[in-house]
Amino acid sequence: MRPAELRALLGRVRGGKVTPADAARRISALSPEPLGFATLDHHRTLRAGFPEVIFGQGKTVAQIIAIAGRLFERHGLVLATRVSDEARIALAEAFPRAQVHDAARCVVLRRGRAPRGKGRVLVVCAGTADLPVAEEALVTARALGSHAELIADVGVAGLHRLLAHRERLRGARVLVVVAGLEGALPSVVGGLVDRPLIAVPTSVGYGAHFDGLAPLLSMLNSCAAGITVVNVDNGFGAGYAAHLINAGGRS
Amino acid sequence: MRPAELRALLGRVRGGKVTPADAARRISALSPEPLGFATLDHHRTLRAGFPEVIFGQGKTVAQIIAIAGRLFERHGLVLATRVSDEARIALAEAFPRAQVHDAARCVVLRRGRAPRGKGRVLVVCAGTADLPVAEEALVTARALGSHAELIADVGVAGLHRLLAHRERLRGARVLVVVAGLEGALPSVVGGLVDRPLIAVPTSVGYGAHFDGLAPLLSMLNSCAAGITVVNVDNGFGAGYAAHLINAGGRS
Amino acid sequence: MRPAELRALLGRVRGGKVTPADAARRISALSPEPLGFATLDHHRTLRAGFPEVIFGQGKTVAQIIAIAGRLFERHGLVLATRVSDEARIALAEAFPRAQVHDAARCVVLRRGRAPRGKGRVLVVCAGTADLPVAEEALVTARALGSHAELIADVGVAGLHRLLAHRERLRGARVLVVVAGLEGALPSVVGGLVDRPLIAVPTSVGYGAHFDGLAPLLSMLNSCAAGITVVNVDNGFGAGYAAHLINAGGRS
Amino acid sequence: MRPAELRALLGRVRGGKVTPADAARRISALSPEPLGFATLDHHRTLRAGFPEVIFGQGKTVAQIIAIAGRLFERHGLVLATRVSDEARIALAEAFPRAQVHDAARCVVLRRGRAPRGKGRVLVVCAGTADLPVAEEALVTARALGSHAELIADVGVAGLHRLLAHRERLRGARVLVVVAGLEGALPSVVGGLVDRPLIAVPTSVGYGAHFDGLAPLLSMLNSCAAGITVVNVDNGFGAGYAAHLINAGGRS
Amino acid sequence: MRPAELRALLGRVRGGKVTPADAARRISALSPEPLGFATLDHHRTLRAGFPEVIFGQGKTVAQIIAIAGRLFERHGLVLATRVSDEARIALAEAFPRAQVHDAARCVVLRRGRAPRGKGRVLVVCAGTADLPVAEEALVTARALGSHAELIADVGVAGLHRLLAHRERLRGARVLVVVAGLEGALPSVVGGLVDRPLIAVPTSVGYGAHFDGLAPLLSMLNSCAAGITVVNVDNGFGAGYAAHLINAGGRS
Amino acid sequence: MRPAELRALLGRVRGGKVTPADAARRISALSPEPLGFATLDHHRTLRAGFPEVIFGQGKTVAQIIAIAGRLFERHGLVLATRVSDEARIALAEAFPRAQVHDAARCVVLRRGRAPRGKGRVLVVCAGTADLPVAEEALVTARALGSHAELIADVGVAGLHRLLAHRERLRGARVLVVVAGLEGALPSVVGGLVDRPLIAVPTSVGYGAHFDGLAPLLSMLNSCAAGITVVNVDNGFGAGYAAHLINAGGRS
Amino acid sequence: MRPAELRALLGRVRGGKVTPADAARRISALSPEPLGFATLDHHRTLRAGFPEVIFGQGKTVAQIIAIAGRLFERHGLVLATRVSDEARIALAEAFPRAQVHDAARCVVLRRGRAPRGKGRVLVVCAGTADLPVAEEALVTARALGSHAELIADVGVAGLHRLLAHRERLRGARVLVVVAGLEGALPSVVGGLVDRPLIAVPTSVGYGAHFDGLAPLLSMLNSCAAGITVVNVDNGFGAGYAAHLINAGGRS
Amino acid sequence: MRPAELRALLGRVRGGKVTPADAARRISALSPEPLGFATLDHHRTLRAGFPEVIFGQGKTVAQIIAIAGRLFERHGLVLATRVSDEARIALAEAFPRAQVHDAARCVVLRRGRAPRGKGRVLVVCAGTADLPVAEEALVTARALGSHAELIADVGVAGLHRLLAHRERLRGARVLVVVAGLEGALPSVVGGLVDRPLIAVPTSVGYGAHFDGLAPLLSMLNSCAAGITVVNVDNGFGAGYAAHLINAGGRS
Repeated sequence: MRPAELRALLGRVRGGKVTPADAARRISALSPEPLGFATLDHHRTLRAGFPEVIFGQGKTVAQIIAIAGRLFERHGLVLATRVSDEARIALAEAFPRAQVHDAARCVVLRRGRAPRGKGRVLVVCAGTADLPVAEEALVTARALGSHAELIADVGVAGLHRLLAHRERLRGARVLVVVAGLEGALPSVVGGLVDRPLIAVPTSVGYGAHFDGLAPLLSMLNSCAAGITVVNVDNGFGAGYAAHLINAGGRS
Repeated sequence: MRPAELRALLGRVRGGKVTPADAARRISALSPEPLGFATLDHHRTLRAGFPEVIFGQGKTVAQIIAIAGRLFERHGLVLATRVSDEARIALAEAFPRAQVHDAARCVVLRRGRAPRGKGRVLVVCAGTADLPVAEEALVTARALGSHAELIADVGVAGLHRLLAHRERLRGARVLVVVAGLEGALPSVVGGLVDRPLIAVPTSVGYGAHFDGLAPLLSMLNSCAAGITVVNVDNGFGAGYAAHLINAGGRS
Repeated sequence: MRPAELRALLGRVRGGKVTPADAARRISALSPEPLGFATLDHHRTLRAGFPEVIFGQGKTVAQIIAIAGRLFERHGLVLATRVSDEARIALAEAFPRAQVHDAARCVVLRRGRAPRGKGRVLVVCAGTADLPVAEEALVTARALGSHAELIADVGVAGLHRLLAHRERLRGARVLVVVAGLEGALPSVVGGLVDRPLIAVPTSVGYGAHFDGLAPLLSMLNSCAAGITVVNVDNGFGAGYAAHLINAGGRS
Repeated sequence: MRPAELRALLGRVRGGKVTPADAARRISALSPEPLGFATLDHHRTLRAGFPEVIFGQGKTVAQIIAIAGRLFERHGLVLATRVSDEARIALAEAFPRAQVHDAARCVVLRRGRAPRGKGRVLVVCAGTADLPVAEEALVTARALGSHAELIADVGVAGLHRLLAHRERLRGARVLVVVAGLEGALPSVVGGLVDRPLIAVPTSVGYGAHFDGLAPLLSMLNSCAAGITVVNVDNGFGAGYAAHLINAGGRS
Repeated sequence: MRPAELRALLGRVRGGKVTPADAARRISALSPEPLGFATLDHHRTLRAGFPEVIFGQGKTVAQIIAIAGRLFERHGLVLATRVSDEARIALAEAFPRAQVHDAARCVVLRRGRAPRGKGRVLVVCAGTADLPVAEEALVTARALGSHAELIADVGVAGLHRLLAHRERLRGARVLVVVAGLEGALPSVVGGLVDRPLIAVPTSVGYGAHFDGLAPLLSMLNSCAAGITVVNVDNGFGAGYAAHLINAGGRS
Repeated sequence: MRPAELRALLGRVRGGKVTPADAARRISALSPEPLGFATLDHHRTLRAGFPEVIFGQGKTVAQIIAIAGRLFERHGLVLATRVSDEARIALAEAFPRAQVHDAARCVVLRRGRAPRGKGRVLVVCAGTADLPVAEEALVTARALGSHAELIADVGVAGLHRLLAHRERLRGARVLVVVAGLEGALPSVVGGLVDRPLIAVPTSVGYGAHFDGLAPLLSMLNSCAAGITVVNVDNGFGAGYAAHLINAGGRS
Repeated sequence: MRPAELRALLGRVRGGKVTPADAARRISALSPEPLGFATLDHHRTLRAGFPEVIFGQGKTVAQIIAIAGRLFERHGLVLATRVSDEARIALAEAFPRAQVHDAARCVVLRRGRAPRGKGRVLVVCAGTADLPVAEEALVTARALGSHAELIADVGVAGLHRLLAHRERLRGARVLVVVAGLEGALPSVVGGLVDRPLIAVPTSVGYGAHFDGLAPLLSMLNSCAAGITVVNVDNGFGAGYAAHLINAGGRS
Repeated sequence: MRPAELRALLGRVRGGKVTPADAARRISALSPEPLGFATLDHHRTLRAGFPEVIFGQGKTVAQIIAIAGRLFERHGLVLATRVSDEARIALAEAFPRAQVHDAARCVVLRRGRAPRGKGRVLVVCAGTADLPVAEEALVTARALGSHAELIADVGVAGLHRLLAHRERLRGARVLVVVAGLEGALPSVVGGLVDRPLIAVPTSVGYGAHFDGLAPLLSMLNSCAAGITVVNVDNGFGAGYAAHLINAGGRS
């Protein structure tokens, strides 16, 4: 139940179209639901405008299926990230309408048609190998209701590739910039625009890259003002924050 | 010259109120100005809506005074951060109207009256010792034109202190949450609101805190979605990003 | 031989019911027993109230079986932790009465019925993926003789799930709080209770989580007083310490 | 107001000795008190049995004095830790009855006589240079109401010094073991007793000690079961946890 | 050619029993021998009293076989360490008299009978899982010509197991002490003896053990004087150094 | 199109041998070519004298084949590094004339005959296990047009092996020195020559080697002047820089 | 004695203009000269074309003066780096012709006039605070005999400042690029030129900058090919290597 | 009381020259002596052949004086290391015969004449700035009774300086090799000798040296066999271990 839905429900109670008992039953369905291995936070949709997102890593396939089923039944909308190959196949079997994003390792379940995305989230990515993380951000922002686009493989060593997109960069409402190796792209993009920019380091690299530490530190120390950072490979977190910014905080 | 001013100038050229030569002279003043030890980016106001900010650390007092003077002359607005005690005193002497913020170690120079802040940036801080960083965020957001407020000393070990502010938290357009020690506050606040939240780790702690590494890692790994992070003690960066989000990217 | 048993034996010697020779033979059985690859510390039951625990990691299956056999013969009680899938199967075959805990990767062998657990150890866990570590703590505390319960999946991003258990939290004699990601849960729980709290970071996370370093640092720097910490994923150590506290140090 | 005091107050209300209005006024005094730079958690005494402790690091002298004054007025009992030389002198001047512990850098303010300590907390310390941390643990445990004793300079390189105290070690209800350098002492003591043991690494060392990282890792990886750990140099945290264990969780 | 053999050869030249030409040919055989992928240091036996040791890690099976063959032909003595399962099998096939030590992952090839070991190297190991490293030290010291013995599984949590060997510890000429987890054993042993002690940290542990970093730091910071340290799991290096010390530097 | 080719083309335009339209078409082919998952930087040959190099890690086999095909068609010259076994086989099938370097994990595609290498790049490598990285440097420098040679297995523990090559070392125009373990070789070589020296740390080692961190730090702190360093195992980067130096910056 | 001087001397011996005895005396003056606290490497000028450079850090003022005196007497040319304020003053007093570079903390002593610099070394620096390191590189390259120039304060957040210098960048024979904060400048410059580029990270930054670790890792992981790196703040090393490259390895 | 003295005393008891009561009194004087802030280990001389050494760091001047006085009275021999300037002056005043070593920051108190050193410990040091650590090793080895010599400033960048001492290196019984920066010297020396070699990293360096981490890792990963390592700047530990090796373990 999203905030607008709660207001509508209470309006129908006032208007006599829904009995207080019925309304009470529906509202109490927002209480946490214990599954033994999990405690579902159904109240979250009301609080945050979107149901709990399933973080697939470290959960068994059976746990993911069970949680997805309960969330889908209540909210008609499920996003699962970091879903293993095995679990993606199982979800696709269990929920035939599931949209499976293999590169991003995400699955979206949605009752009805997706709404038309609002605003403009622009995801920019430095190299081909960074694409899975960029796509996780894209899938997330779109699942939450934002309009989101991608510019791929415009790393700083070939600056003209990036500068060719200058207008598009300046036209976005919020940018997500994804980069591995030295992670310099957010600083360069940040110097070109006056929009909020979320930097995402990736684990693409080797040696003294330390699985993403190098670009993470790089982005935290950026000389361009207004850049904020998420965890290594956390396309989901960047897409989520970008949606919140894009939506003006409203959902 | 801010974007709106450029559009106005060009409008006046079209309307014959300003000669092309005059306009050209004023636009070319946006070229980088080399001072030997620095290259001033006067074009930045046009590009980013705000003049270059002076990062005081590592600059001599004379360099700071010189840069501030040039920027102030051109743009009528200067923000300097991480300004040493000695340099703050020197700036106050050189620019009698300078607003000096000692706890935040910032100085603001402004021609004319400050505009009335827009929107609502809420800075929340976990402990008394985190206040200087929180105030740097406040000063920055206000200097840029946002309305910004502070809630101090509401760390998670006394949760009722925080919960008492729940409505205020949910009413902000963007939140800046500042915490040292274990840095748990952004996760708890993030679970209560559906707004963009910028987490700022501070160097307040000791031992295995590693001068802010502990809360930095904590915030990067937050279980609450939509949180982005800036560098340790980077109140400036958080305030800047919060303003961009608050202003809807426009300036 | 536990302390009470030694006192009883010596009482029977004084009472003439056991000859000094018999008692000497039984007491000398407490000497370390060399197995070549291991030196069994049979005296430990007398010193610490519980036989040596088998740490399965890095031991061959044959070594684990041999050590378990000798300990079981002497003490009638064996706890083995970090036992590989292969070794759990082998133990179950070798000791048909073995209790195998697959998620916790533990095996308990016990002669006779388990005693009814005393006191109240409460294990609280932040996410579903942290359950194996929480269960290792549960199995350990119970094997040692404590009564222990579990509350699962009450992470800080959905605070109302945790607050719903406030009374249960305050009713425990000692708490074990298990969390991955940013590890904020112990600080929040620690602010709600006045009982000893043992925090257990887990390796659940990715990127700048560094396999548990993030929550480990978080817990070591907690702003809530009275929290102590064990190694990453060390459910065993937490369960053991919780039992010692719960038992008032007596065993 | 401690829990027992609240129960007594409510009893007097029921017995008609206190009016509901008076009781309400006294209970509402537990609400958080905002000082601008701090939000005092007066409710904490009721929740945790002891007023908020002042962490002196990062606070100005004026802030410490102000907080101490408010806490003392309400609760008659204040503990301040990590208090700088300057602030200890100022507190001693402001509160003539303050007990100042210079080595431990702590100050205790107490109305009336200290209660006679209960139980038995034993603080054991490896080297002379570790004494300040050990004394912070002692002062804390005593301030909270425990009986606490110290054994100094019994590092593992001269094992007979430690073994001479074996009976005393085994007689404690809970042990705090403080060590710098390699931090081996908790493992050795932990093998000799069956009581809860809190290990405190100190920053005493140099080179690859990394200001306490070496003994911290050592203690987290101890081969002795039942050891829990606090942050480097965190004598306060160890003393606090030891008191909670010693008091059986009651206060 | 070992130093004594060179002296003998030159003696025979002086005595006319060997022609200068023959001696020159034999001495020039000490020149480095290039194999393309390796440059064999045949001069090493003369310089260091023992031929080059083959470090198996990172070499192909074919490279190891080729190098072993060349060294064996020239020197009649080969020690190979960190030899993979596959390469050990291949060496056993290629050199039927090879002595294969599976736990230690070492192979020794020797022409003629092993000399009777001299002196007394004592290898002490904390846990069963540390045995492979301890055995690498044993095999190395023996291959070089030392007499070497082992005491296994005498970790500090059961101190009486160690103290039972006190006389044997004090009787060694040099000790190698191998420990994982917190690595406290060298400090305790170092406090009991006045002999050189080489500490070997192992990668046995988990979590904040960081694959051996914890005991490595522990040993480098030992409070017992006279302890030197080798790399994590470097049983070879410890055995080699122990032999040099045991042999009084002579070989 | 390399710089000389552009000058020639423009010369032919001036001479009337090529129409402006033809020249324009050829020059515009230098624009970035978007492939969806990649944006090819065809302009790079003009800017840097060599086409974009394919970094194989993190790209799918299909992506590598597609990029190689496009680059080969335009530039007649392709270098791909860090190509997996599977991708090397696929490239060899797709491009029958591909030169596959298995140890170096590189593939070179070239139209026509390789030019005769110029200058003298000398690659020196400390141990047999470092060879794959050394060969990546060799293959790269040769593909770019330099003459390059190798000296293998001359680590510092057998110094005479290195000193035997002193003249060859001093005769090179630039040196690439590859070493794992402690990475001491560059310092020793650097002290013997007055040429630019590029040091390459490798991941060959174990324990406190931290996958190449040890030699990386070693090389960054070298006491020999004039040494510069590349990332761990980055034979490609060293070979590339060596070529630029060897070619006097011209290509 | 530089290589050309040695050849000239030997030529004069052959021509009978210098007696063998005289020549022998002058050549033997190249032997190491022991000063007790130092062993001067006079042979170095012959081997490397430049006398030993004095690394001032960790040496007493008296030691620096003594070494400078001996080197100057023999070679007429001294470069001292990392010279403390106190030592610079002392050197200026002891050697009135000393050229003291305060920002760079360097001192140069030279007999006769400085030669006119050859080639073109271009030092580019990201921010004003990076200037001291950039100047150390400039002073070093010039002292060694190269022509060297500086472009200051052209960080990537204001890209047009850098692009304005594109031709100058492409005209250098070798570039030294100095940057603190995230260290992105070398990647961007590296993508614009086809010359050798030496990247120098600086310690300018705070928080997760870790005193230069962030830009160091950034530069080691650069996506631009041909970049090599020196230690944090090592302007000397970069200037030295740049000179070797600029001089074609000849001196 | 050293071992030989104990044997002599017991001999005199057997011979009737000393009464058992007298002997008992003298032997019991070996019991630990508690000073409140320290527990003196007088038994250590018997066990280890040398009295406890005073580690000055972290002790107050008064504590050092008191401990030195007690040890001197009992054993006539005191070594104190890491003694601050202030404490060295105080010791020199309190004990007029104290030998103060300022560079090494050591003080030796000795009753009677120093014995003539035995054997041959050779301390080799890479740079002038490493001298204080080398001297701490020298002072320690000599205080313990070894003959010890020094070779200074023979770093690997000027190899001929080292090779000039080849015979002296090979003639030592044990070597201590001290180096900062990259710490390559032990590997090179280790390849030249067949004697035990103790490597001592120093904190001399900057940037990615991390206060000695770079040479520490370097030495732990040395390619030369037989090298063992002590903590950064631990000249004392190296000198102590060298003495034990030099003395054949006897003292």
